[in-house]
Amino acid sequence: MITSDERRARAALTRITEPGDVVLADLVDAHGAKAVVDGLRDGETFARAEARAWQVRLEGYDPDADLDRAAAVGARLVCPGDAEWPERLDDLGGVLSLERRRVVGARGETAVRRGGPPIALWVRGSPDLAQQTATSVAVVGSRAATAYGTEVSGEISYAVGRRAVTVVSGAAYGIDVAAHRGALAADAPTVAVLACAVDVSYPRGHAQLLERICESGLLVSEVPPGSAPSRIRFLTRNRLIAALTGGTVVVEAQLRSGALNTARWAQQLLRPVMGVPGPVTSALSAGVHELLRGGGAELVTEGSEVLASISEIGDNTLPLRFGETRPRDDLDDSTLRVLEAVSAGRPVGVERIARTAGLTLHDTELRLGRLMLQDFVERSGDRWRLSTAARGDVAR
Amino acid sequence: MITSDERRARAALTRITEPGDVVLADLVDAHGAKAVVDGLRDGETFARAEARAWQVRLEGYDPDADLDRAAAVGARLVCPGDAEWPERLDDLGGVLSLERRRVVGARGETAVRRGGPPIALWVRGSPDLAQQTATSVAVVGSRAATAYGTEVSGEISYAVGRRAVTVVSGAAYGIDVAAHRGALAADAPTVAVLACAVDVSYPRGHAQLLERICESGLLVSEVPPGSAPSRIRFLTRNRLIAALTGGTVVVEAQLRSGALNTARWAQQLLRPVMGVPGPVTSALSAGVHELLRGGGAELVTEGSEVLASISEIGDNTLPLRFGETRPRDDLDDSTLRVLEAVSAGRPVGVERIARTAGLTLHDTELRLGRLMLQDFVERSGDRWRLSTAARGDVAR
Repeated sequence: MITSDERRARAALTRITEPGDVVLADLVDAHGAKAVVDGLRDGETFARAEARAWQVRLEGYDPDADLDRAAAVGARLVCPGDAEWPERLDDLGGVLSLERRRVVGARGETAVRRGGPPIALWVRGSPDLAQQTATSVAVVGSRAATAYGTEVSGEISYAVGRRAVTVVSGAAYGIDVAAHRGALAADAPTVAVLACAVDVSYPRGHAQLLERICESGLLVSEVPPGSAPSRIRFLTRNRLIAALTGGTVVVEAQLRSGALNTARWAQQLLRPVMGVPGPVTSALSAGVHELLRGGGAELVTEGSEVLASISEIGDNTLPLRFGETRPRDDLDDSTLRVLEAVSAGRPVGVERIARTAGLTLHDTELRLGRLMLQDFVERSGDRWRLSTAARGDVAR
Repeated sequence: MITSDERRARAALTRITEPGDVVLADLVDAHGAKAVVDGLRDGETFARAEARAWQVRLEGYDPDADLDRAAAVGARLVCPGDAEWPERLDDLGGVLSLERRRVVGARGETAVRRGGPPIALWVRGSPDLAQQTATSVAVVGSRAATAYGTEVSGEISYAVGRRAVTVVSGAAYGIDVAAHRGALAADAPTVAVLACAVDVSYPRGHAQLLERICESGLLVSEVPPGSAPSRIRFLTRNRLIAALTGGTVVVEAQLRSGALNTARWAQQLLRPVMGVPGPVTSALSAGVHELLRGGGAELVTEGSEVLASISEIGDNTLPLRFGETRPRDDLDDSTLRVLEAVSAGRPVGVERIARTAGLTLHDTELRLGRLMLQDFVERSGDRWRLSTAARGDVAR
């Protein structure tokens, strides 16, 4: 559990610094956010040139104002230590220390220094962030998408949404918006990770879409209420999309494209990266083709292939065709315990399932996601129950 | 060297049997064609049910009639042992013995029994078959191609043709014809491997194209003059396209497509297989995408990528961007000897180069092809000379 002082200090840091600051993340990790903020107030600069600007912004700042402003639009600050903090985000720390070592002194350093784990996340919408993203896939691509690209983005997102896999994207024009709309068309909650604040409509034309997204899903941002997007915030936002999800699908991307940046983050985080091919005569597919040619990315043509790819995570057995069921005795012990903790009757919450199975929440969520992909269980709101198939065939 | 009796016996076998017969290929390999034909004439059946039909066809047959008929249209019979027999074709023997072992008794057996090395090839056109295909790539795909597919087929074939890489295809509608036309547009000889005889225009609408192809390039077939195409001849033709070339590019292909059959042959022969992606919404790209998803095939978007892929064969150094030159001292000893045997002045024939370099013809051709890809040498008709770049910079 996180103290209210620590939460307020993290709110302050999201207000006075830019997202993804690696050195700051290390400082917070070592000393706690409150100690860092108190230090800044006392004139400590932590050997950072930026510290002076931080201190100026901190003068007279009251984090409760931001927390209240967030609450007023149904948003909250989610911090490491909160139950709904997605453990996946911690992977960003690991990648960074590795990356940092590799590029010290090189030109790429500035970009890499912007890849630290988030200090906290402003989240708007009712679902639990960790649960909503436990079984999820990023669907990203160019703003200047073609009709082909938006069609495929929507189709894939609809298909994975139908299987209760959460589509995460950036609410930008083109591929992103088609992805969110596809998921919504499948009545699946979707998550938009924004470069602006969760109470800012950017792009302006998406105000209604953003409202619709957070009716059932979530808006997520590293920057506090009222903040506008910026170049650096777009880039750091990409790493969050990659880190929050079980894999990234790039639908259309030019050769230099933010979507490829998201894909590279996913690769560094060892998440599956998928690419949707297109005509070789289309500049908007050139980036995807480069990704597919470079190896490391899997060519996908439809939702079922995306589902198969993300369902393989941590699963060393042969990939199942999605929706294919597997006999219970093929499940490992822990997964079997999770399955047995799910009732055939009333849906059960994940905490209770975790308690019954004797596993951590994170572990339980992962296994529930996999059981869902194999059609053993289904989600009902926040809760879980046996699938129709599993109920009809409890003996298998 | 092959005796005239043996050549006549092979001509007879192409007349009385269907292409690709594995058992027949083994018999001929073990006893020679003449002994097999003599045996059939003497009533020997070699334990083959088909032998009776062969014997009937053999009655009163005179191979000289076929050889004369071929000569009348500028065609000849090329046999193993002839200087222009492509050594690559012998790889079919190796694949087969492996495949045969794998599928004995299985349903696939009939198809595999149709994959033996050719007994001989009917070839029409002036270039030397081995030299013309030494640096070559197959460009194949669906008959019912889209405008997109034919455009890309033509573009790629034009680009590789410009670099003196021979485009080999099947002269069918759609992708094939676009490939041949692309090569011809680059003034590059192209090779059509036919399911009918080299003096038969099939499809009828391609009569003029076939004439144009064999003005500078070659028509190749396993069946003797006057023969019509058949289903089995289309399938066995595919293996020849794969075996004759340094790699196979599939441009558009439906899920069950002859082009995929060619690709599988190329894979079994350990030749690089490449696929051109297209819209995932196009049924004509579905087969290519499956090929690319299955692994083993490389996604290519343009001619330079095809050239890079086939120029890597047997080359363990880093792939060069096509057209990029490499200092002479990066060449291995044998390749350097080939290069030194090529004169800066008058073009030299490959036999003389092989003699000077002290290498086999096959080995010399391979190395010449690679040197050409690296812009050290260029082809001038049947002969070779130093490229402009290499002449201007003999010291490098």
